[in-house]
Amino acid sequence: MTTTGRPVRITDVAALAGVSPGTVSKALNNTGALRDSTRARVREAADRLGFVPDPDARWLSARRSYTVGLLSADSAGRFSIPVMLGAESALAAGRMAALLATSRRDPVREVFLVESMLARRVDGLIVTGRTTDPRPPVDLGGSDIPVVYAFSPSTDPDDASVFPDDAHGARLVVEHLLATGRRRIVHVGGRPHQHSSTERAEAAQRALADAGLGLAAPTLFGEWSEAWGRQAVDVLLRTRDLADPDADLGFDAIMCGSDQIARGACDRLRELGVAVPERVAVTGFDDWDVMALASRPPLTTVDLRLEELGRRAAELLLDAIAGRPHHGRELMPMRLVPRASTG
Amino acid sequence: MTTTGRPVRITDVAALAGVSPGTVSKALNNTGALRDSTRARVREAADRLGFVPDPDARWLSARRSYTVGLLSADSAGRFSIPVMLGAESALAAGRMAALLATSRRDPVREVFLVESMLARRVDGLIVTGRTTDPRPPVDLGGSDIPVVYAFSPSTDPDDASVFPDDAHGARLVVEHLLATGRRRIVHVGGRPHQHSSTERAEAAQRALADAGLGLAAPTLFGEWSEAWGRQAVDVLLRTRDLADPDADLGFDAIMCGSDQIARGACDRLRELGVAVPERVAVTGFDDWDVMALASRPPLTTVDLRLEELGRRAAELLLDAIAGRPHHGRELMPMRLVPRASTG
Repeated sequence: MTTTGRPVRITDVAALAGVSPGTVSKALNNTGALRDSTRARVREAADRLGFVPDPDARWLSARRSYTVGLLSADSAGRFSIPVMLGAESALAAGRMAALLATSRRDPVREVFLVESMLARRVDGLIVTGRTTDPRPPVDLGGSDIPVVYAFSPSTDPDDASVFPDDAHGARLVVEHLLATGRRRIVHVGGRPHQHSSTERAEAAQRALADAGLGLAAPTLFGEWSEAWGRQAVDVLLRTRDLADPDADLGFDAIMCGSDQIARGACDRLRELGVAVPERVAVTGFDDWDVMALASRPPLTTVDLRLEELGRRAAELLLDAIAGRPHHGRELMPMRLVPRASTG
Repeated sequence: MTTTGRPVRITDVAALAGVSPGTVSKALNNTGALRDSTRARVREAADRLGFVPDPDARWLSARRSYTVGLLSADSAGRFSIPVMLGAESALAAGRMAALLATSRRDPVREVFLVESMLARRVDGLIVTGRTTDPRPPVDLGGSDIPVVYAFSPSTDPDDASVFPDDAHGARLVVEHLLATGRRRIVHVGGRPHQHSSTERAEAAQRALADAGLGLAAPTLFGEWSEAWGRQAVDVLLRTRDLADPDADLGFDAIMCGSDQIARGACDRLRELGVAVPERVAVTGFDDWDVMALASRPPLTTVDLRLEELGRRAAELLLDAIAGRPHHGRELMPMRLVPRASTG
């Protein structure tokens, strides 16, 4: 290893011996016409630095590949694709190419793809996934190239991970609802036990507690779907008299776990004659344009800033490739997008 | 060029001269210890084949990179991403890695990205885009690596292109509507003047003409949005008496240009009390799950088979890399997906 921690390269040996990389190659491979003194000087430099030539790719190892692997465990790609496009954009600006590989949540396929990328001598890996649930570190088979986990953090807290700050997003939503005069907020979450579900639910309760309030009803968990949003509204309004336009509904805002859930909630409220946002404010999460903008009314929601997240992952990786590795988890702050569903 | 049309490689020279590629390199670079007769034989073979060594990458040129470039002009990626994932999957099965690059519809960026891929010695390129409108061929700057256009065909009819058969999809829809008893079909298209819009509209009319029928109203073009689907229903029903449940609406089926349009149409029909599919059948196009399945009722639609299209593009490219180039345009047949919106 050099003093900066990266593996010794043929160019390091060349610099120390005062010769070209081509001469180093010839000296160590016993090819070409070289003076014995040159050959000896190169070997001494290689020994001092601990340089181990790879017999299969002596020439390739002489240079960085300027290529980074983008490994996604996702197949649908709604979250991973913006992350990868952001990373690709930042890498291209740094003159690095991006090798794409999708494991489709198949661990055997992942091992094969990582081996394939290592054989192509990628300078580093960005690993992304389908949810923000932590995932085990990739198996590098002994290689020490840097890896950054984007969107799905590594279970190893020492690995470099950057992922969305769900708690921040939930707090932004609650503070926005309070600032616009809502006091009796209910929360309709997505699938239970997922990191993003529990994180958002807990953060919403903390933000309300900070204002001396609580949720107006226990959180309802279900699915990440419009149908669940419609169904949750029926559950919340089960015992209410909807014929009376002044009846107390028990809540004045529904904070939903996704734009799909929020869109379903808006549809059902409209069908039941409950005006959004006048009587009930509704918020989404994700800022997924085809849902948030097509909703009636358009949704106040939270932008996960996935492209920025991908760009940040690329920056962390480029730093590590340059010998300045990052460690630990970094959270990407979210951004509130106010629209008509909260008035 | 060799007889199969691909560029001459160092391995071709080696085979003709009866030596190893390493010997070819030494002979042409005037390095290493070789007999003069060997050096002469290699030079003669190189001359006969017209082999031009690249001084910057003599060793790399000796081998294929087993890497293919995936270039997308799209940034949102709803159509291009499934195409690229299908291609990546087929390439990985062929032990080829995929270099990802997105030009975001910026021609200057595209030139830069293509140069960057050529510098990495990709064995070929797959080019995809945002619509099925033909696009100009990529500028390879003199390189003759094979290129396959996927989803967005090349304007050069001699280039290998594979793209969705919109006319086939439209015919599948019309035949399905006729088979389920509909006779008075109207067509609500997306943006006018786009290849997919005009192709589908014309094919629908041809399919109806084959059955001795015509459209029940002139085609309405607008946007690829739910709002346009709702608005188009209002236009179609403007002069009708909706209070009378037996009134003649003038049509019994709406063939929509996309799932978003169809979903909007279903929503508006439901709000106006017109039962789908009992009174009016509605069809989509794209089989985009979040639209087609969330629609009430779920949409009968057409699957563009984008992953298969990407896989087919990869097959065409692998053939070309192996010396069996394809030329001309190939259409990917679509698949009807019947659901509740047509009964």
